[in-house]
Amino acid sequence: MKLSQIGELSLLEQIRKRFEEHSRHIIVGIGDDAAVLKPVDKNLLLTADMMVEGVHFDLNFITPYQLGFKLISVNVSDIYAMGGKPGFLLLNIAMSKNTEKEVLDRFLDGIHGAMKLYTVSLVGGDLSSSNKGMTLSATLIGYTKRYIKRSGAKIGNRIYVTGNLGDSACGLELLKKIRRTVPLQRNRSTFNVQRLTENSEILTFNSKLSELGLSWNDVEPLLRRHLLPEARDSKEFVRNATSMIDISDGLLIDLSRLCDESKVGARIYIKNIPMSSELKKTASYLGIPPIKLALSGGEDYELLFTTPAEKKVKAIYIGDITESEKIIIHTLGRKKTFSAEGYQHFDVQG
Amino acid sequence: MKLSQIGELSLLEQIRKRFEEHSRHIIVGIGDDAAVLKPVDKNLLLTADMMVEGVHFDLNFITPYQLGFKLISVNVSDIYAMGGKPGFLLLNIAMSKNTEKEVLDRFLDGIHGAMKLYTVSLVGGDLSSSNKGMTLSATLIGYTKRYIKRSGAKIGNRIYVTGNLGDSACGLELLKKIRRTVPLQRNRSTFNVQRLTENSEILTFNSKLSELGLSWNDVEPLLRRHLLPEARDSKEFVRNATSMIDISDGLLIDLSRLCDESKVGARIYIKNIPMSSELKKTASYLGIPPIKLALSGGEDYELLFTTPAEKKVKAIYIGDITESEKIIIHTLGRKKTFSAEGYQHFDVQG
Repeated sequence: MKLSQIGELSLLEQIRKRFEEHSRHIIVGIGDDAAVLKPVDKNLLLTADMMVEGVHFDLNFITPYQLGFKLISVNVSDIYAMGGKPGFLLLNIAMSKNTEKEVLDRFLDGIHGAMKLYTVSLVGGDLSSSNKGMTLSATLIGYTKRYIKRSGAKIGNRIYVTGNLGDSACGLELLKKIRRTVPLQRNRSTFNVQRLTENSEILTFNSKLSELGLSWNDVEPLLRRHLLPEARDSKEFVRNATSMIDISDGLLIDLSRLCDESKVGARIYIKNIPMSSELKKTASYLGIPPIKLALSGGEDYELLFTTPAEKKVKAIYIGDITESEKIIIHTLGRKKTFSAEGYQHFDVQG
Repeated sequence: MKLSQIGELSLLEQIRKRFEEHSRHIIVGIGDDAAVLKPVDKNLLLTADMMVEGVHFDLNFITPYQLGFKLISVNVSDIYAMGGKPGFLLLNIAMSKNTEKEVLDRFLDGIHGAMKLYTVSLVGGDLSSSNKGMTLSATLIGYTKRYIKRSGAKIGNRIYVTGNLGDSACGLELLKKIRRTVPLQRNRSTFNVQRLTENSEILTFNSKLSELGLSWNDVEPLLRRHLLPEARDSKEFVRNATSMIDISDGLLIDLSRLCDESKVGARIYIKNIPMSSELKKTASYLGIPPIKLALSGGEDYELLFTTPAEKKVKAIYIGDITESEKIIIHTLGRKKTFSAEGYQHFDVQG
């Protein structure tokens, strides 16, 4: 059934019922002129992101479920990167009238899955038809006592990341080869990724992988990081962090943003950059240096932050903040300077 | 110059500089992972709206300036309709790379004009390219001690509106005849509408109007209400109002929403419905009963609210809340029942 056969008011009513929440913070939820929230004795955090079909995503590569999940993760990641806790979501959706109801339902499943994972409530938004393609816009409201800006890094601070880099970019490279969607989604009750090994979809998929000399176990974490990224909670780092950003456009470009705002430079050590065994194996099969994906690949949504050198931090130490206004990459005893302007042409011969 | 010749980062930097605000509420504005606002000891109000080119607007009829202004007014109207004060804006814009920079600039002028009028600060958002057409998404955050829901109307309450109805719908009918944009905008310093009588654009326009037997003075308030609607501040009504909604889809449909949520009915008196002399004159020229536009025409963004009968209210009394779950329209001694389902076919022979 197509959306045009249902009507906007009926769709809105379905969404309202499905997402109705009885949170102690929400006085008025979806359905009035505006939502009403109780006052919160913390700083408010506000972030908004947009995803446009054909620009940010291609439904030949990503399922509606994954798209919904990712839209929320991307926004939650921004709230975590400020040291906050996500709370309330407003969602504007424009879809063609010819869209199958099934597509909207699976998209909302993905939104719902992510909302449960991050404890976020939907409090408003708009559903509209579009002439062509899908446009998604989300605003997320979070809160925090202590916030962490990009601009607080001090000379001598250590630089950390929260997890492996490059997996998402390698997942994207794989998708470009495979040229199809991957039926990866979360189990509703446990939020574990369903492996779907019995699924005939996966069997077809496995035979495609075999042609490339890879197995499902090799590529699953890479595809998952790209299609169902999980934002990293900054909770345990907030007390010590002097600056923070999430890695959405790649380590080097996001580190240079942090350095620019903090008016400092950085020295990073290639040997410290965390890379998964799956990245190393798969990138090699694809003919791409893994370190290139780890330094310049985007959408890992790991956190990048700095702390005073003496603090003990349970994250991966990758470098130090310096006085120089450049980023120096130390690799095998050689040094190389990175400049944000030229990052697209950046290439490491490591 | 086209947007593609400028680049996203440079555009974002320009927007950031133009809209940079030093408000005592804003700790971190545009440019970090999320904006940070100081805690407010009031209830928060959240609303979001989307405008899609070809669905909600046509740039052959509305200028980019007017579009920007209207996007903000529509959202501010939702905050006022909850009894609140608007505060902070997040804006997601998707435009084709082939859009002229001039179009974006004039759009931002309209946004800026409305932000000054309503004392709203831009604190975040996203700028993206689109494959086709423009999609605009705004989230507005407001606050209030006392909020007014749609659901508080009580039997015996009086029903009020804040101003003339039907002007905007009549303006739209005019635009459909004229089939061009009207160079109406606000004077930056005083926020008065520029009459532009010396302007050659207006001279051409005037000759088109003469063909219809109308003058610029007749149609200006109607076009203005449609193209540059001003949201009505609810400040003076908040203390007494028991329920409130803004009129975006037309008096009858929005009144029936208010009645549905309040589980009451309403009786309205046709002779009390406020209509401008310009509406009466112009609608007649266009062959449309003015009362039809006043009852069913949308986008006036006047407030519709109820108060206990004994309260003195400086607004226009149009009817009473009743026990019946229907809306009864009293006209010339006759009665007629309105049902929301059939509103599109509603027609008053008055």
